Amino acid sequence: MSAPQHTLAELAARFDLQLRGDATRVIAGVGTLESAVAEQLAFLANPHYRPQLASTRAGAVVLRAADAQACPGACLVAADPYVAFARIAALFEPSTPPTPGIHSSAAVAASAVVAADASVGPCCVIGEGARVDAGAVLGPHCIVGERCHVGAQANLVARVTLVRDVTLGKRVLVHPGAVLGADGFGLAFDKSAADQGAWIKVPQLGGVRIGDDCEIGANTTIDRGAIGDTVLEEDVRLDNQIQIAHNVRIGAHTAMAGCAAVAGSAKIGRYCLIGGGAGILGHLEIADHVTVTARALVTHSIRAAGEYSSGVPLQENPQWRRNAARFKHLDELARRLQALEKKDAKP
Amino acid sequence: MSAPQHTLAELAARFDLQLRGDATRVIAGVGTLESAVAEQLAFLANPHYRPQLASTRAGAVVLRAADAQACPGACLVAADPYVAFARIAALFEPSTPPTPGIHSSAAVAASAVVAADASVGPCCVIGEGARVDAGAVLGPHCIVGERCHVGAQANLVARVTLVRDVTLGKRVLVHPGAVLGADGFGLAFDKSAADQGAWIKVPQLGGVRIGDDCEIGANTTIDRGAIGDTVLEEDVRLDNQIQIAHNVRIGAHTAMAGCAAVAGSAKIGRYCLIGGGAGILGHLEIADHVTVTARALVTHSIRAAGEYSSGVPLQENPQWRRNAARFKHLDELARRLQALEKKDAKP
Amino acid sequence: MSAPQHTLAELAARFDLQLRGDATRVIAGVGTLESAVAEQLAFLANPHYRPQLASTRAGAVVLRAADAQACPGACLVAADPYVAFARIAALFEPSTPPTPGIHSSAAVAASAVVAADASVGPCCVIGEGARVDAGAVLGPHCIVGERCHVGAQANLVARVTLVRDVTLGKRVLVHPGAVLGADGFGLAFDKSAADQGAWIKVPQLGGVRIGDDCEIGANTTIDRGAIGDTVLEEDVRLDNQIQIAHNVRIGAHTAMAGCAAVAGSAKIGRYCLIGGGAGILGHLEIADHVTVTARALVTHSIRAAGEYSSGVPLQENPQWRRNAARFKHLDELARRLQALEKKDAKP
Repeated sequence: MSAPQHTLAELAARFDLQLRGDATRVIAGVGTLESAVAEQLAFLANPHYRPQLASTRAGAVVLRAADAQACPGACLVAADPYVAFARIAALFEPSTPPTPGIHSSAAVAASAVVAADASVGPCCVIGEGARVDAGAVLGPHCIVGERCHVGAQANLVARVTLVRDVTLGKRVLVHPGAVLGADGFGLAFDKSAADQGAWIKVPQLGGVRIGDDCEIGANTTIDRGAIGDTVLEEDVRLDNQIQIAHNVRIGAHTAMAGCAAVAGSAKIGRYCLIGGGAGILGHLEIADHVTVTARALVTHSIRAAGEYSSGVPLQENPQWRRNAARFKHLDELARRLQALEKKDAKP
Repeated sequence: MSAPQHTLAELAARFDLQLRGDATRVIAGVGTLESAVAEQLAFLANPHYRPQLASTRAGAVVLRAADAQACPGACLVAADPYVAFARIAALFEPSTPPTPGIHSSAAVAASAVVAADASVGPCCVIGEGARVDAGAVLGPHCIVGERCHVGAQANLVARVTLVRDVTLGKRVLVHPGAVLGADGFGLAFDKSAADQGAWIKVPQLGGVRIGDDCEIGANTTIDRGAIGDTVLEEDVRLDNQIQIAHNVRIGAHTAMAGCAAVAGSAKIGRYCLIGGGAGILGHLEIADHVTVTARALVTHSIRAAGEYSSGVPLQENPQWRRNAARFKHLDELARRLQALEKKDAKP
Repeated sequence: MSAPQHTLAELAARFDLQLRGDATRVIAGVGTLESAVAEQLAFLANPHYRPQLASTRAGAVVLRAADAQACPGACLVAADPYVAFARIAALFEPSTPPTPGIHSSAAVAASAVVAADASVGPCCVIGEGARVDAGAVLGPHCIVGERCHVGAQANLVARVTLVRDVTLGKRVLVHPGAVLGADGFGLAFDKSAADQGAWIKVPQLGGVRIGDDCEIGANTTIDRGAIGDTVLEEDVRLDNQIQIAHNVRIGAHTAMAGCAAVAGSAKIGRYCLIGGGAGILGHLEIADHVTVTARALVTHSIRAAGEYSSGVPLQENPQWRRNAARFKHLDELARRLQALEKKDAKP
């Protein structure tokens, strides 16, 4: 694999950016303002890093027009430098073109349909009634269960499990260890059973539908619906180790950071940002354009766009202990304050 | 696969329910009160959904006697409609009967014993001294390590890892990505090592024992004991992405929702309900019939049945910021209130 | 497999411990003070368990000199009994020596280099340019992606995924389900896209570097860097289900308990202890020798060694509800107190 190379002139033309500086300079990779060397492209999007611009040794920098003058070398001017950088950086991604065809160690059911140019890696298992569309790539050890459908150009990096009745849209990207379509957690408590009662499993009869351009992180789990489907609309982005319970619906373009969790039948709007480790209880609704900060727990529906939080601040342990102990008596504290106020208000 | 069909008369007889309405009506699936069509059965258990009863188009509804009169069509009367529905819905679960026998791509150790009617799927690996009992199903990519024992009729859906010395009871159901029997997190800090000290691994010599009828969710992890076993008694139900550390013991019929975590050597009682994302610190004991709400952190033993919580409520970020900042001085606030009270109490 | 046996004389000599009691006694395993029988060795490190010493039936006990007199039977005296016990217990770990060589079902790329004495288990997949060094063990179902490097004597227990550009040092131990080197969660929001905008993926071009003697728990995920690498220095110990985002750096000898999570580009010092379920936000720095207690959320950099916490205590639900409701008005409460104080201060 020889690294790809592009002149600044090529990059400017291809991504419709304004070039300032040496058009013949060759770029062979990307770096940060701090780390990039002469053959690398850096970017300045977050103003926090502006002080690093003057001393960068990057061959060129993608930046806003307002920052161009301060750039010591060549630059590519973009309205949104981070978006432009993301597009350019994709040129330098190391990639081995997948081999079309089905690896000899894969087990494909008789009724499964795999497009001729799809790539099915070592030890993949494809179940009855499954479909893998044109250009889809299944890395090693993927399981595509009964009646699952992998959309065109979808990419299951490795070791992805689609249990059954899971539909992935076009260009969906799924990272290793993700499990889609496992049973939702449905239990009925049978009081009449022996002992003091026992659990009965509620059959999980629905599926999972993932819209076009979604991304699902490593070891993330998305359960299939109890009745009806669990749904991610298009362009939903899930980080690692996220848990999505049965019959959840997530609106288009919503992004959730690592370890977030959504309980059964919650409905999340479009363009939401859910912070790392945030939790959303079951059967709630969250409006469009809602931001939930890291580790917040959403315990009621959110009807208006905005930013929502919960939790208490980090402190050194001895101070925290004292404050936490007082929390246990906060209601009493408030009542005592009220009593004082009342007395004080008396003439 | 043609969908199964049952008349209401058949369902009433089979599940010992009282039928009101057309006994010859054919049911071919289930739905919600809102979504069900004429060939489908719905149910009304949660009073929250009672308003939907009048307008349901379901072919029949499972409900309590008290709701029967308000039902526009046929109904099946049950003392516990959710339990009855769960049982009926199981008839409509799509299922491909597993093929008995060992897939040609599976690797089975010489000393392993696999029942003749067990099913071992593609790429399964079964280690020395392992045992797979009658009727057990190992879906694709399961690993059953040395000296593990899979009980009769147990079902490892796919990609389940039993590392070693793991015993599963009868009818245990394990979902993809679950890892049972990995090393517990045991470390001793050796101050005498180079640098300022280093970790020494404490060998994890125990196993994992899972009782009959337990269910283990996708990507859940249950470590083996350090000395002695990690134990789940019968009918314990674990959702996805739960972490159970070494030497934990969970009492029969306890259910834990997604992302809950239990630290080493904690003992949880019978019939407990542990909410999503709840945490239980190590070496604690929790009595029977304890409910821990979502995300609560249990930091001390719980001796009495009841419901326990921690956390602070969700708010819009600006309000939350102000309140959270005050939390850092809650102890001081309480002292100031006390001082005022003292002054006020003086004659 | 016959269990190993050692006399107390052998153990004392081998681990340089002082022996009191019958040197010929044969030890064939380990147990707790409470459970150990005559052929087993127990230990007393935590003073909490001292009351169990008098009644132990263990064949011998590893303990401090100060506890030796109270021991009813033989004992091995150690400066650090837990460290000594960990070393001795390793003798009794059941272990099947791995078979050197590559299992017939493994798929090894043409350009991969696997040491002759390394062991590659069933269904392993090794990608182009990968390297597996001397004495390394890959249990069943491991995936070692392109340009990954597994150090000498490293042990991938089973079903470990190294996606690409992942380097493991010597003696690194990785448990099942761990995913190293998946894409970091890098997204740029393109406002100019159709609808009200859409996400663009930011290519993740870096790798993962894991130092010597690290341990990575089951279903833990460590993403590769966006630009540059995600790094764990030597002897870092991660429990299960931990999430490490792109470009995080963790200092040597730091240990993190289950379900902890670290957001992008955070830098954690050496010899830190991060409690179970703790969270660390992105781009923060944490000094050496910092302890973060279970479930705390670190929202700002920590410059000084010490113990840090957040959260509120567990209570019975009715009390907790009342206190939590007051938290929503804590700022107002503080202002009202201030107002009273002001009035009170007036002459």
